[in-house]
Amino acid sequence: MSYEEWEYFLEENYAEMIENRRYLHQYPELSFQETKTRAFILEKLKEYGYQDIQENVGSGGIIATLDTGKSGKTLGFRADFDALPIQEETEFDFSSKIPGVMHACGHDAHTATLLGVAKLAIKKKSGLKGKILFIFQPAEELPPGGAKEIVASGVLDEVDEIYGLHVRGNQKYNGKIGYCPGFAMAASDIFEIKIQGKGGHGASPHTSVDPTVIAAFLIQQLQTLISREKDPAKSGVLTIAVFQSGSKVKNVIADTATLKGTVRTFNHEIQAMIEQRMKEMTRLICEAYGASGEVQYHRGYPAVYNHPKNTELVAKLYEAQYGEKAAEEVAPAMGGEDFAYYLKAKPGTFFFVPAGIPEQTVNYPHHHSKFSVDERSMLVGAKAFSLIIVHHLTDEKIELEARGKK
Amino acid sequence: MSYEEWEYFLEENYAEMIENRRYLHQYPELSFQETKTRAFILEKLKEYGYQDIQENVGSGGIIATLDTGKSGKTLGFRADFDALPIQEETEFDFSSKIPGVMHACGHDAHTATLLGVAKLAIKKKSGLKGKILFIFQPAEELPPGGAKEIVASGVLDEVDEIYGLHVRGNQKYNGKIGYCPGFAMAASDIFEIKIQGKGGHGASPHTSVDPTVIAAFLIQQLQTLISREKDPAKSGVLTIAVFQSGSKVKNVIADTATLKGTVRTFNHEIQAMIEQRMKEMTRLICEAYGASGEVQYHRGYPAVYNHPKNTELVAKLYEAQYGEKAAEEVAPAMGGEDFAYYLKAKPGTFFFVPAGIPEQTVNYPHHHSKFSVDERSMLVGAKAFSLIIVHHLTDEKIELEARGKK
Amino acid sequence: MSYEEWEYFLEENYAEMIENRRYLHQYPELSFQETKTRAFILEKLKEYGYQDIQENVGSGGIIATLDTGKSGKTLGFRADFDALPIQEETEFDFSSKIPGVMHACGHDAHTATLLGVAKLAIKKKSGLKGKILFIFQPAEELPPGGAKEIVASGVLDEVDEIYGLHVRGNQKYNGKIGYCPGFAMAASDIFEIKIQGKGGHGASPHTSVDPTVIAAFLIQQLQTLISREKDPAKSGVLTIAVFQSGSKVKNVIADTATLKGTVRTFNHEIQAMIEQRMKEMTRLICEAYGASGEVQYHRGYPAVYNHPKNTELVAKLYEAQYGEKAAEEVAPAMGGEDFAYYLKAKPGTFFFVPAGIPEQTVNYPHHHSKFSVDERSMLVGAKAFSLIIVHHLTDEKIELEARGKK
Amino acid sequence: MSYEEWEYFLEENYAEMIENRRYLHQYPELSFQETKTRAFILEKLKEYGYQDIQENVGSGGIIATLDTGKSGKTLGFRADFDALPIQEETEFDFSSKIPGVMHACGHDAHTATLLGVAKLAIKKKSGLKGKILFIFQPAEELPPGGAKEIVASGVLDEVDEIYGLHVRGNQKYNGKIGYCPGFAMAASDIFEIKIQGKGGHGASPHTSVDPTVIAAFLIQQLQTLISREKDPAKSGVLTIAVFQSGSKVKNVIADTATLKGTVRTFNHEIQAMIEQRMKEMTRLICEAYGASGEVQYHRGYPAVYNHPKNTELVAKLYEAQYGEKAAEEVAPAMGGEDFAYYLKAKPGTFFFVPAGIPEQTVNYPHHHSKFSVDERSMLVGAKAFSLIIVHHLTDEKIELEARGKK
Repeated sequence: MSYEEWEYFLEENYAEMIENRRYLHQYPELSFQETKTRAFILEKLKEYGYQDIQENVGSGGIIATLDTGKSGKTLGFRADFDALPIQEETEFDFSSKIPGVMHACGHDAHTATLLGVAKLAIKKKSGLKGKILFIFQPAEELPPGGAKEIVASGVLDEVDEIYGLHVRGNQKYNGKIGYCPGFAMAASDIFEIKIQGKGGHGASPHTSVDPTVIAAFLIQQLQTLISREKDPAKSGVLTIAVFQSGSKVKNVIADTATLKGTVRTFNHEIQAMIEQRMKEMTRLICEAYGASGEVQYHRGYPAVYNHPKNTELVAKLYEAQYGEKAAEEVAPAMGGEDFAYYLKAKPGTFFFVPAGIPEQTVNYPHHHSKFSVDERSMLVGAKAFSLIIVHHLTDEKIELEARGKK
Repeated sequence: MSYEEWEYFLEENYAEMIENRRYLHQYPELSFQETKTRAFILEKLKEYGYQDIQENVGSGGIIATLDTGKSGKTLGFRADFDALPIQEETEFDFSSKIPGVMHACGHDAHTATLLGVAKLAIKKKSGLKGKILFIFQPAEELPPGGAKEIVASGVLDEVDEIYGLHVRGNQKYNGKIGYCPGFAMAASDIFEIKIQGKGGHGASPHTSVDPTVIAAFLIQQLQTLISREKDPAKSGVLTIAVFQSGSKVKNVIADTATLKGTVRTFNHEIQAMIEQRMKEMTRLICEAYGASGEVQYHRGYPAVYNHPKNTELVAKLYEAQYGEKAAEEVAPAMGGEDFAYYLKAKPGTFFFVPAGIPEQTVNYPHHHSKFSVDERSMLVGAKAFSLIIVHHLTDEKIELEARGKK
Repeated sequence: MSYEEWEYFLEENYAEMIENRRYLHQYPELSFQETKTRAFILEKLKEYGYQDIQENVGSGGIIATLDTGKSGKTLGFRADFDALPIQEETEFDFSSKIPGVMHACGHDAHTATLLGVAKLAIKKKSGLKGKILFIFQPAEELPPGGAKEIVASGVLDEVDEIYGLHVRGNQKYNGKIGYCPGFAMAASDIFEIKIQGKGGHGASPHTSVDPTVIAAFLIQQLQTLISREKDPAKSGVLTIAVFQSGSKVKNVIADTATLKGTVRTFNHEIQAMIEQRMKEMTRLICEAYGASGEVQYHRGYPAVYNHPKNTELVAKLYEAQYGEKAAEEVAPAMGGEDFAYYLKAKPGTFFFVPAGIPEQTVNYPHHHSKFSVDERSMLVGAKAFSLIIVHHLTDEKIELEARGKK
Repeated sequence: MSYEEWEYFLEENYAEMIENRRYLHQYPELSFQETKTRAFILEKLKEYGYQDIQENVGSGGIIATLDTGKSGKTLGFRADFDALPIQEETEFDFSSKIPGVMHACGHDAHTATLLGVAKLAIKKKSGLKGKILFIFQPAEELPPGGAKEIVASGVLDEVDEIYGLHVRGNQKYNGKIGYCPGFAMAASDIFEIKIQGKGGHGASPHTSVDPTVIAAFLIQQLQTLISREKDPAKSGVLTIAVFQSGSKVKNVIADTATLKGTVRTFNHEIQAMIEQRMKEMTRLICEAYGASGEVQYHRGYPAVYNHPKNTELVAKLYEAQYGEKAAEEVAPAMGGEDFAYYLKAKPGTFFFVPAGIPEQTVNYPHHHSKFSVDERSMLVGAKAFSLIIVHHLTDEKIELEARGKK
């Protein structure tokens, strides 16, 4: 059985991948609340013929196992399936039907891609050896995330290698994949700062301690953790995403102001410095105004470390098949990903698939209300996953040295 | 008929004033939505014997007229009756029963005070001359407010002098009144600033234009309109009461940030400078970051100008009766009051009644969720109103020169 | 002897006043270093016939006494004579010949004015009674100033009333004077803030503690003492006049940054609040960055309190002679003046003389390198001083009720 | 002739290296003013026997050529010899004798090191082939620097490979060298921002446009170019080293404020973004306050790019001789270095020598007034240079694969 057969099937099945993806896109569900999404995945897996399905791994993960019965490696592939609390502002026929919830990060495409591969794999079962675990994971967007508990459940114990991918809506689709050996995505922490001032009438600031002004100062001062206190040779991001103080009334000084945000780092020392200094600064700046400030800092997903050997393998397999430069090395990104937990447990890699629609003037970034995905990226991802399967679990030899052959 | 008789009656009727006030306190209603409050006032006025009642003056004002049939001055007295969107946090038996709505500015006490005076006046009608208008006004807290339309309705045309009062919960009750000739309360404007940035993922600030950081800077820079650009000899306040950006998600950079607040001034030029400079600054600071900013600025109530002669009269009447220093001159306050409209139309004054509960360690400011009122302040206000009536509408002579007699 | 004679002489002598003023203007001397200025004043006083001259009162004050030998009041008049460390940028023939030093506050005019009055008074001695002290004072610009020690010397003990004036270069000359009963000029404090960070190479901010960034933050945060923490109904100014950090080298992060400035208030509590909060804020903001900050705060001249009776007298005298509205009530100014010490010791007043050159498009403010003075203001000042002398020390009656007669 | 002989000589000559370095340390000279330093180097070179000396290459460079007469490579070695305008605060016997000037960057050590190698090389001339250029360069600290003109002079044309080093005073001496293939030091730009406000009296901020407050705001806002607008995966530093506004007078608002600083980047796009955005921000922020701002931005030294092959060679040679891990790969540094110009013209590398005195509790950073150097670092540098010479210009084979042999 050759890879070409797999490729043929994938393209034939492309229409269903699109259909599945569009269904998911219309009915997005928030992290840890993915009831219908899970039901849809289960239905499909059963339709494809899977019988060995674990339904509630961790906080709702679904793991379908294809055991060929023949000795060989055990491979894991993971797709995430939760959506975001964003009101979609695209004009597709299949835009979100759920107000305020949107697949603005492409997880719908990830899931449809993996379903496509799962459908193919079970069809080709007789030509395969070893085992495959198809891991459908909830709640990637909301720490503590779905991955940690799936890993903790022990289902990965028998897995030899683990693979995952992410579409990149803000990079135009080009039929290629992107790979990044070593640290590829940042450790992703979240925090919440509460500043307790003293409310009062807006006309009498001197009788109040105004938390809005204090929080505004604090935001500026936190900039210097990145611009002055961090080693400039090392990466770090500190974003205040949410600022809330006061209600609707324009003449009442609020009692409290709340800031929420995220910190991204690769380096442990930078991460620790930012956490510590954020706490110190908040405390002292608030004290300087007669207010008090408290920081809740939650360390989130660790940095994604792509094992160099597996990363190189995927790149070489894809280039062997689709030509030199079909796999491009990309720079590390500051985004967080709970795929990190799989890669701390097992060797593997997490690669990227450019998915911006080439015809669009603007390819909106992830988490934007106008984010969109070129669906052909699903075919690219499915091909890359299939190449890994063919390489490891069949006797076909893909000539890795033949890079650039096409 | 002597003032002493009035005083006796007021004290006898104090229990009902308390009862009325506590009823109102338990069932506060937001500005322009005071249905039940209006019904309560009407019921009481009818119970007291008033027949000449105009029920829907302006946006829901109630005006009860006492016409003695004898020639004499026409006096107007006003009480406001709306509440605020604040969740009460006191522990009185009679705390607000309406979630998120509270009489946190003492309007309940104002209305109960005026009802008490109205009850007395109709009782004493035979001893009076001239006319009295008891004006119960909605929506003082929410510009455009209730006063403007009441004045516009023409009901004040026949009024010779107009009087009003405000309790001061953050100044301990002492049985005295406060008076302030000339400008006594500030012009009260509101504004809303919308900053349009460009949202995105919190890990990629460089692909976004972060409106939260821009708004934080703007807040700081607006401080300098007060600290550097305003003539320091003239008063001005600029409060940002509300800051909203982002939603619940900690890793999404918002598209927009919204600031809402109030500006208080006495002087027209300072008012105009702040409005103009706020607009310029917002535009240019936003432009400096590649964002755009828009300011909606609404001029609110004008400054309260107490006519010196009427102000002096009230002070002298009260001191004549209650001793030298029973009326204290107070500094102008930055709070706004739509009583300003009455005083632009007719001579009169707006005075203050200290109403903080002496036993409380902290007397919370107005608009605070723990604001409270010493109810004896109602008696003080009712006495001051009564003195004005006795002075103008009876033949009794209160010896004004006898200040300090007691 | 009538005031009209005095007036005639003053106008005749105007040319010499101009000459004296221009001499002083060309040879300005810094506070406490006014050697030549003192010599010039002494020379003139001797030339005019003064014999009773105290030469070194306090830190270089000159007091010329005119004792008529007849019983009567003792009046004091004061002129200050120091200049500022400013490089003059005007184009007058008589611009400063001393690099970096300039009479940019009009003290040259004050001194020439008082010399003119002194010359006249000794001429008219036979028609006068009582005594006059002409007080020429050094170092008004540099706290602790020259006034304090002059008062401390006891020379004022015998004085009944004390008068002084200030030209106002930024208000166009109009032949009038300005008066301000009560608090007329602010308490004037100075401070110096030293921020101790940790220097280093500009390319490695993370190994340094950058005092320049900290000081920049502190400046912004100090704005809120004025804009948020001060009672808006009370005046206050906080100016950072000097910011120094680093030297010429653009890539060395400095060890320290220094801020210098002034605080102006009328009210003791506001003054105390600003001093205390400035110290707290500096300490805590610096600590928030791992730096240390120290504030040297020096209370300077107290507020100038014009005794209402004397103030009213000068206004009435001037209006009686020069027409209704020839004296205009002016608002209190935030500038400091060590004339405050004289007025704490003795009754009197400090009035203002508009002195901007009407033909100039811009009348630059005091302490500006293009500051200038309409010399006719000296004549106005000399006339006002003379009216006080004629009123108190001659038998002529100036009909005060005749305001507006001309 | 073996490397061991060279090593022996270097150690024997160590005392003279120290002597030379301490002489230079005591008589530091500012960039482009290194008269005595040049004389000293010339004297030494002549003393050692050099005859082919070019004395004024570029702006005062000295190039001593050792031509063996035998065919072979031409190697260049460079040492810089200027000092900094810093007042030394160490307590060495040999501390700077020149007030306000200090070798606070180790150039004294660089020059003494290269003199030591030059002394040895001419001694060993008979055993060598090819040519060596010993390049002593002025003005590394002050852009445009000394390197650019030396390269422009064409003296490098015949050079095959070029080498340089820098001691690192803030990293403890350990007998090792540090190497960094690829970009190793940042492009180093400088800028000067002048903010033109409107001066005036410190008590009347509303009549002025205060450049100190504006500059303070600008500093904060420039932080966001690093913290928000720069791709966090790419390095960049923006340091405001100098802030000057006002003079000595604490109550004069200045007309202008001046900021001076440096920008460090590796990436051309980040460099261009910072320059452009700094100009835009300055213009618009100033405009927002009614001031005007101007940025003079001078692109300085380009980034130092270490040619990987040469870099690897030096590391391997040193490890071959001094043991595995005797050469440590180091992270790129944000400091600028005009050695960049040599490396743009010719292949080679610029390596680092840890030089902090181990016994000191604090090893102060470069450009600090307490910066110091462990003199043994000179021996390390001289050995590394010698290894390059022995490898290229003798027939001795240093077994590169024998890393870790000792």
